[in-house]
Amino acid sequence: MPIPTPLHGVIPPVITPLTPAGDVDTGSVRRLAEHLIGAGVHGLFLLGSSGETAYLTDAQRLTALEAAVDAAAGRVPVLAGVIDTTTARVLDRAADAVRAGADALVATAPFYTRTHPVEIAGHFRRIREAAGLPLFAYDIPVAVHTKLPRDLVLELAGDGTLAGLKDSSGDDGSLRRLLVELRPLAPDFSVLTGSELTVDGALLAGADGVVPGLGNVDAHGYVRLYEAARAGDWATARAEQDRLAALFALTDAGDPGLMGASSSALGAFKAAARLLGLIDCAATAAPQVPLDEAAVARVRARLTGAGLL
Amino acid sequence: MPIPTPLHGVIPPVITPLTPAGDVDTGSVRRLAEHLIGAGVHGLFLLGSSGETAYLTDAQRLTALEAAVDAAAGRVPVLAGVIDTTTARVLDRAADAVRAGADALVATAPFYTRTHPVEIAGHFRRIREAAGLPLFAYDIPVAVHTKLPRDLVLELAGDGTLAGLKDSSGDDGSLRRLLVELRPLAPDFSVLTGSELTVDGALLAGADGVVPGLGNVDAHGYVRLYEAARAGDWATARAEQDRLAALFALTDAGDPGLMGASSSALGAFKAAARLLGLIDCAATAAPQVPLDEAAVARVRARLTGAGLL
Amino acid sequence: MPIPTPLHGVIPPVITPLTPAGDVDTGSVRRLAEHLIGAGVHGLFLLGSSGETAYLTDAQRLTALEAAVDAAAGRVPVLAGVIDTTTARVLDRAADAVRAGADALVATAPFYTRTHPVEIAGHFRRIREAAGLPLFAYDIPVAVHTKLPRDLVLELAGDGTLAGLKDSSGDDGSLRRLLVELRPLAPDFSVLTGSELTVDGALLAGADGVVPGLGNVDAHGYVRLYEAARAGDWATARAEQDRLAALFALTDAGDPGLMGASSSALGAFKAAARLLGLIDCAATAAPQVPLDEAAVARVRARLTGAGLL
Amino acid sequence: MPIPTPLHGVIPPVITPLTPAGDVDTGSVRRLAEHLIGAGVHGLFLLGSSGETAYLTDAQRLTALEAAVDAAAGRVPVLAGVIDTTTARVLDRAADAVRAGADALVATAPFYTRTHPVEIAGHFRRIREAAGLPLFAYDIPVAVHTKLPRDLVLELAGDGTLAGLKDSSGDDGSLRRLLVELRPLAPDFSVLTGSELTVDGALLAGADGVVPGLGNVDAHGYVRLYEAARAGDWATARAEQDRLAALFALTDAGDPGLMGASSSALGAFKAAARLLGLIDCAATAAPQVPLDEAAVARVRARLTGAGLL
Repeated sequence: MPIPTPLHGVIPPVITPLTPAGDVDTGSVRRLAEHLIGAGVHGLFLLGSSGETAYLTDAQRLTALEAAVDAAAGRVPVLAGVIDTTTARVLDRAADAVRAGADALVATAPFYTRTHPVEIAGHFRRIREAAGLPLFAYDIPVAVHTKLPRDLVLELAGDGTLAGLKDSSGDDGSLRRLLVELRPLAPDFSVLTGSELTVDGALLAGADGVVPGLGNVDAHGYVRLYEAARAGDWATARAEQDRLAALFALTDAGDPGLMGASSSALGAFKAAARLLGLIDCAATAAPQVPLDEAAVARVRARLTGAGLL
Repeated sequence: MPIPTPLHGVIPPVITPLTPAGDVDTGSVRRLAEHLIGAGVHGLFLLGSSGETAYLTDAQRLTALEAAVDAAAGRVPVLAGVIDTTTARVLDRAADAVRAGADALVATAPFYTRTHPVEIAGHFRRIREAAGLPLFAYDIPVAVHTKLPRDLVLELAGDGTLAGLKDSSGDDGSLRRLLVELRPLAPDFSVLTGSELTVDGALLAGADGVVPGLGNVDAHGYVRLYEAARAGDWATARAEQDRLAALFALTDAGDPGLMGASSSALGAFKAAARLLGLIDCAATAAPQVPLDEAAVARVRARLTGAGLL
Repeated sequence: MPIPTPLHGVIPPVITPLTPAGDVDTGSVRRLAEHLIGAGVHGLFLLGSSGETAYLTDAQRLTALEAAVDAAAGRVPVLAGVIDTTTARVLDRAADAVRAGADALVATAPFYTRTHPVEIAGHFRRIREAAGLPLFAYDIPVAVHTKLPRDLVLELAGDGTLAGLKDSSGDDGSLRRLLVELRPLAPDFSVLTGSELTVDGALLAGADGVVPGLGNVDAHGYVRLYEAARAGDWATARAEQDRLAALFALTDAGDPGLMGASSSALGAFKAAARLLGLIDCAATAAPQVPLDEAAVARVRARLTGAGLL
Repeated sequence: MPIPTPLHGVIPPVITPLTPAGDVDTGSVRRLAEHLIGAGVHGLFLLGSSGETAYLTDAQRLTALEAAVDAAAGRVPVLAGVIDTTTARVLDRAADAVRAGADALVATAPFYTRTHPVEIAGHFRRIREAAGLPLFAYDIPVAVHTKLPRDLVLELAGDGTLAGLKDSSGDDGSLRRLLVELRPLAPDFSVLTGSELTVDGALLAGADGVVPGLGNVDAHGYVRLYEAARAGDWATARAEQDRLAALFALTDAGDPGLMGASSSALGAFKAAARLLGLIDCAATAAPQVPLDEAAVARVRARLTGAGLL
């Protein structure tokens, strides 16, 4: 399906449920997708960081994406992360995504290697030309270790290479400047924030939507927040964001002395989704460290505090 | 004078005008202070990053601070940066600031050396005890190369060590979590954002005020933005912020191949203030590279575009 | 073939020659491998950073590795990089490497995602168990953005998980401490430096060998350096290293304003290998920027200066 | 006194002994200086990182420097750190150092602020011109957060701005390239490594000397290492370096969960110096965390293991 221009609203980066044996649990993918669509989300983003894309084999990625496309059944667009180190490898991922029926692609700058704005531009242009689907740039310096230069995004928005930006840089000041400079240049370009704690501010600033990892846990909350902002009811938007910010503390459930931030946050999203009955099993992929019982209890307490349990 | 609790509103980080010979131009300090107070700002922050504090000798710092305190004449509180590497050196700066009549102090975590949260806490506690003035923590990782941990700020807010926070981290997501956790704990604690491009969002999120470097150039704009936000008129606040975000592009006036970010941004603030007649001379302190004529022309164009010239 | 314990000597990280169309040029792989073995190297490391592994598809990686294994024909061991973001993906790469006939595997810590020492340990243990080949840890913070903790390497050396370390961290101080602590614990553990400019010092410190990207260009030089060090002739070793350090300046051939460090260094290695007749075509993989004629002339001048042309 | 050209040998960065009340213990400064000179060091570097310069007030710095100059009595040159954020502040420190009788100055690039190579060059040139003493550049990215570009050092060595470099970057590969390029250009330029774990390799590479923090604890060891290297006896140099590398583990005495790296390393140097009877009191300056008894016992064990107790 063609995606709306600009793509807007709540597009959760869907977690990838696994079985206890570590396989993709396609039944839970479908159940979760159904739940999210029922909550009113405006799209699904598969195979992003919250989807554990860095932890999944190519075969697992394909399985998860196919299940989501099938579950979405054209009701909302499905964006597919095509996360790999450089162009040729991303093109392999893009071919899989096209085959699985994705509606748009989401790619980062090259990583692992050292890169340069000229190379990043060439990278996105080659992907756009080869894959034939709308392309979103994924700005996630915590993973990629470069920040997409604002001038580069403006250039690739202006010439049609990019359909949009998923900004997970956390740099809302730079995002504001981008929004101000972008509007006269590329009004159909979609700016989506991945900063799930400042969505009210981002929407006030003119962002088109949000890609919140926490949306796996409380999609209704983000939809309410988005609708309030659309209606100009900023007091409601703020209150909803405050509630979600308090809920977000569940990502700290794991002990930082025992595990990495990914283990804690992705483990918490999955534990919460299981406690809410959205998926069958909270297992995360190796080598992440599983949350222990005390950590899961902390997740449960946050869900209760937010009125979700 | 006792500062309001919480301190709120627009508190510009005042630039330090210099003469062509490099001395502090106290006449321009006074004229600028008078202008800012006339524009309705709620306080003055001397000797911050925008004040070139890292470039001024102790004697120059004292001169600039005394002039500002004298010019403010108790109409608005004067906060003084006491920026130095570690505790004993900060205490020397604090003694100067007390002597000059500052109403509150603003200190960073230790820098140059490698530090630890336990040491940062001890650092702020010693400064608070020794100096006898309200103390604000200055979170500016781009300079200090550590980010103040949220738990540490909560602890020092709760026990009264800190009267407030100037958050120049640019991490508005972390700021949101702090605000949500802080309110029930320390309602009089003042949270000021130094992120001058996301002030509407920060005020929506519950921040008490803003410390905008660009406020040296357009104090009226920030006061209008603040007042609109206070009144719940978010459409006006957003429009004002958009205008200021466009104006902020003047900080890119210098060629990044020829100078550092400080030379460009501080040079542009000073060039703008001179073009607006607020100070006599746009010189910045060594070893910053002066803006050339083309750069100053770019600054002028931005002022014109924002309706200031 | 079983690898020597400890693996020692000169093990170049072999570049991956491409055709003008971008395919792996297996003829040039073989010719280069033959040249390197003839120069006296002690092993070949395929699919490392110098091998453009981050730029090659899985199919290309397999093609290059198979050609090298075939060319080596058991005369020297072939190590294969299995570079991917996390465990399951690395295991897919490892299965390919085993199939191609590699003698040992070289893996990094997880990247793209945020990780933790406990997870890194689990990562290496799972790879070692599943792949059934000797495993080398590849410490390359410039790519992976974490440094392998010394205690972790000691633990995994002591329990047999790791057969060795390729240290491309550039942190020779930490390497010295590792060497001092490692010897009584795991005398067969192989420590290979990837810091091609400090090989004399590393060998003096007790390293077993070197994995020099520049060894693609001057394998004889590194073999002479290694042999001099083995013989305790440090004056000769130093002079050879000085000559190689001067030659290394060819990696700066590209204009840093126009391309990234990878484009410049890998482009220069390939340009040099072509000028020396070791491969047919100097093309690098997308999105790297090709060296222009002036840059290739700079490479040629360095080769001449080092007595290679 | 004029310093040798190039300055060479062992120049310890002298710790600054404090009394229990936190004052500079000039008696211990003198005793330690006497001990170091007796051990055969070739110079004293006061007010470097090991000297806790970031923790001392200007008055304390002056006191410590005057005591050391007086104790040295012209037998070895005294270098003085003039560590501050930018040019004007460094010039104040330099005036103090000149007044105290220092023989040379050691300055870093600007820090706290963001800088640029053009500004760094201007910074060193202004200091050199104003202070009238030989000037050493102090490359310490862990504190300053920029690395001195090699081209910049070459330029400032070639034009006589700098008399030498203290390289505490830990980047021995870059150091090697510098040494190779520097020799024909500025044969009298002094290159001193601050990487106390790779001194044998640095001397093999052609460095002129070493500035080892651990030299406060085992000056005789570093002098033996230096003399062996001068004599071309690399086996002895290596063995001495290995012994010193094992001793260096005392810097890990403090619990990293309870304190920063500075507290642990500087606390350990001082604890060791006190255990060896070189200073009266092991106190470090606020806000560093003191070593507890268990940590001091670990220091004692390392001294015993190295044959110093």
